[in-house]
Amino acid sequence: MTSNDRAAAVWSDVQAIRAQAPLVHNITNYVVMNTTANALLALGASPVMAHAEEEVEEMAGIARALVLNIGTLSAAWIEAMVKAGRVASRNGIPIVLDPVGAGATRFRTVTAQRLLRDAPPAVIRGNASEIRALYNAEQETKGVDSTRGSEEALEAAQALARHYDCAVSVSGATDLIVSATAVIRISNGHPLMPRVTGLGCTATALTGAFAAVNSSPLLAAAHAMAVMGIAGEMAATRAAGPGTFQVHFLDALYLLQESDIRERLKMEDA
Amino acid sequence: MTSNDRAAAVWSDVQAIRAQAPLVHNITNYVVMNTTANALLALGASPVMAHAEEEVEEMAGIARALVLNIGTLSAAWIEAMVKAGRVASRNGIPIVLDPVGAGATRFRTVTAQRLLRDAPPAVIRGNASEIRALYNAEQETKGVDSTRGSEEALEAAQALARHYDCAVSVSGATDLIVSATAVIRISNGHPLMPRVTGLGCTATALTGAFAAVNSSPLLAAAHAMAVMGIAGEMAATRAAGPGTFQVHFLDALYLLQESDIRERLKMEDA
Amino acid sequence: MTSNDRAAAVWSDVQAIRAQAPLVHNITNYVVMNTTANALLALGASPVMAHAEEEVEEMAGIARALVLNIGTLSAAWIEAMVKAGRVASRNGIPIVLDPVGAGATRFRTVTAQRLLRDAPPAVIRGNASEIRALYNAEQETKGVDSTRGSEEALEAAQALARHYDCAVSVSGATDLIVSATAVIRISNGHPLMPRVTGLGCTATALTGAFAAVNSSPLLAAAHAMAVMGIAGEMAATRAAGPGTFQVHFLDALYLLQESDIRERLKMEDA
Repeated sequence: MTSNDRAAAVWSDVQAIRAQAPLVHNITNYVVMNTTANALLALGASPVMAHAEEEVEEMAGIARALVLNIGTLSAAWIEAMVKAGRVASRNGIPIVLDPVGAGATRFRTVTAQRLLRDAPPAVIRGNASEIRALYNAEQETKGVDSTRGSEEALEAAQALARHYDCAVSVSGATDLIVSATAVIRISNGHPLMPRVTGLGCTATALTGAFAAVNSSPLLAAAHAMAVMGIAGEMAATRAAGPGTFQVHFLDALYLLQESDIRERLKMEDA
Repeated sequence: MTSNDRAAAVWSDVQAIRAQAPLVHNITNYVVMNTTANALLALGASPVMAHAEEEVEEMAGIARALVLNIGTLSAAWIEAMVKAGRVASRNGIPIVLDPVGAGATRFRTVTAQRLLRDAPPAVIRGNASEIRALYNAEQETKGVDSTRGSEEALEAAQALARHYDCAVSVSGATDLIVSATAVIRISNGHPLMPRVTGLGCTATALTGAFAAVNSSPLLAAAHAMAVMGIAGEMAATRAAGPGTFQVHFLDALYLLQESDIRERLKMEDA
Repeated sequence: MTSNDRAAAVWSDVQAIRAQAPLVHNITNYVVMNTTANALLALGASPVMAHAEEEVEEMAGIARALVLNIGTLSAAWIEAMVKAGRVASRNGIPIVLDPVGAGATRFRTVTAQRLLRDAPPAVIRGNASEIRALYNAEQETKGVDSTRGSEEALEAAQALARHYDCAVSVSGATDLIVSATAVIRISNGHPLMPRVTGLGCTATALTGAFAAVNSSPLLAAAHAMAVMGIAGEMAATRAAGPGTFQVHFLDALYLLQESDIRERLKMEDA
């Protein structure tokens, strides 16, 4: 694929989201509920947040993607995630799982594993530590070895992708998006992004919107990360710090044009 | 009433809120807790968020308005809403109910109905789908018929207003605010507003502040929608997208002057 | 100490936070989770929010400060706070307690007292009403006497500081930070700050970051309030109202330089 073809494919998904406004059902953490809903709206999707066991099955049943994020867990929420995940699986609705904090506590690692097994996601989206923690947990070893470098995040991501037959999207200075057989690298973005809480969770939510309109989990995940990075670069041109950045980031998602993608996209298949 | 009289009446309520800083007790959804608290503060009211069954009765007992919003329900929160609603009813404190997502899941529709019956609100505030869903539920039919137009939102709103002896405030490109005998239409606002999460919930929270200082539920609801729309127009003059819009919207609530209302208000009694 | 010495001491802590990025574990209220996480990140600390009983002990065990904030309580959260507090106490990790709304409901006053006794904090941080409510509760009298002036907030703060052997930080037009033997007054800040929800909670969260790098609870609390006030003044120079203020406040925390502190700091030991 040429660079222009890749940009056109990203833009095609953005247009589909704006035209269809797919309903994305989020069971996510308290910290980012507002900001991820706003990012989905700014991009053109329709977010809904619902976590009650009494209604998650019905809500997941009318959604076009399900986003599960374990950032502020408690027991009742896990049951709701499991229930919603089963409905989504049964209906063929893509699930995007963000294992926030996997590796930091055993509760999070175990919960992420349970969700992985119970309702296999189309995409696992996390940072390098989380992806390595999940991989290590699969191998029945424990903890995160922080001395491991990004190449082992790649290995972990590929192993998870093969094991769960899904895409794995690892955010970082260069994002890695892998399937059982492919690797895509995206090096868009800006250093201010890690200084804003929950932009990883926003990447996960947007991945849900892309998965609603693109049947390839690998490409949906890659296109979401491309849009995150490009909107981040656009926001940074107007930002003095993380406060102004957040505001201009939402504007950039809303204002994003094909030319922005064409001029900025740094995506490579390997 | 002349147009200037209407503007003066809206302004009089704004001045009363700024002078009295009424305590507005919110039991609301996680997505909008921060943004609705900020909108109430920017306008001049005093927000408090409290949902524990152990304290909601005491908190509702010292508040001047109670806002119930079912946007992210769970069982314990419903019990808290019921308890707080009973105290408010007993004390003659106005209740504003936002049936977020009524019609989307049966859990939400049933909960909204229970709250309506258990502690009748001064104002029901929702969008056209939610108001029609409540009306349909009253009639023992199910679901939301999305082919129905705004004229049937009017019919549904009027029927609910008569049945529960309350005002019903329906947001849209033109807002409808009805009582058993009156209809007010407000056509302020801006197309960016639906691209920001929770501005409907903000309208509900501000309706609580207006109901604290204006004993007419119909006028309180109408003045709140007028201020929402006018602040939205003011924000839009400075916004490039939904991120900058949110920031300038809070500023506009804070900076709002009588002249802004006088110049912009588009309110009609029918 | 000279004025330059005080500014250098504040700056030294800011540099330490930026260099070490201490993990601050927050069990806090829903309204401010996003904004306090963003303030911690903007300053240079690493926030984590976790409240599940299943994981709070493990999370508190890897954190360098624990922030407990009772702004939107419920029973399960209190148990989590108690568990996390015990781990922090055992490990010598500083605890910062924000008794949000103590005095407004009995549930909050009693919970704040329980937390105070069960896991004594390094710093209690609240407004004058909350500090007086805690003091009154200690004396087995009830309610908040709103006719008492700021001098009695001082007396209450000093009594609590002696009783619990901690620092007490009282926010206001002039902040009072006291220990059993010292009183520091800081008169930085701006009138827009009370018009933004949760800036008191942000002060509490930042106090956690300073307590992670400064072993004196009194100085950690004072330096946090100095940075809050100075960042607030910097933000106000760019703000038209509370919306733009919030955005520039985060930028100011991120951009803060030694010269800002040197030029603006208004701190006095008494």
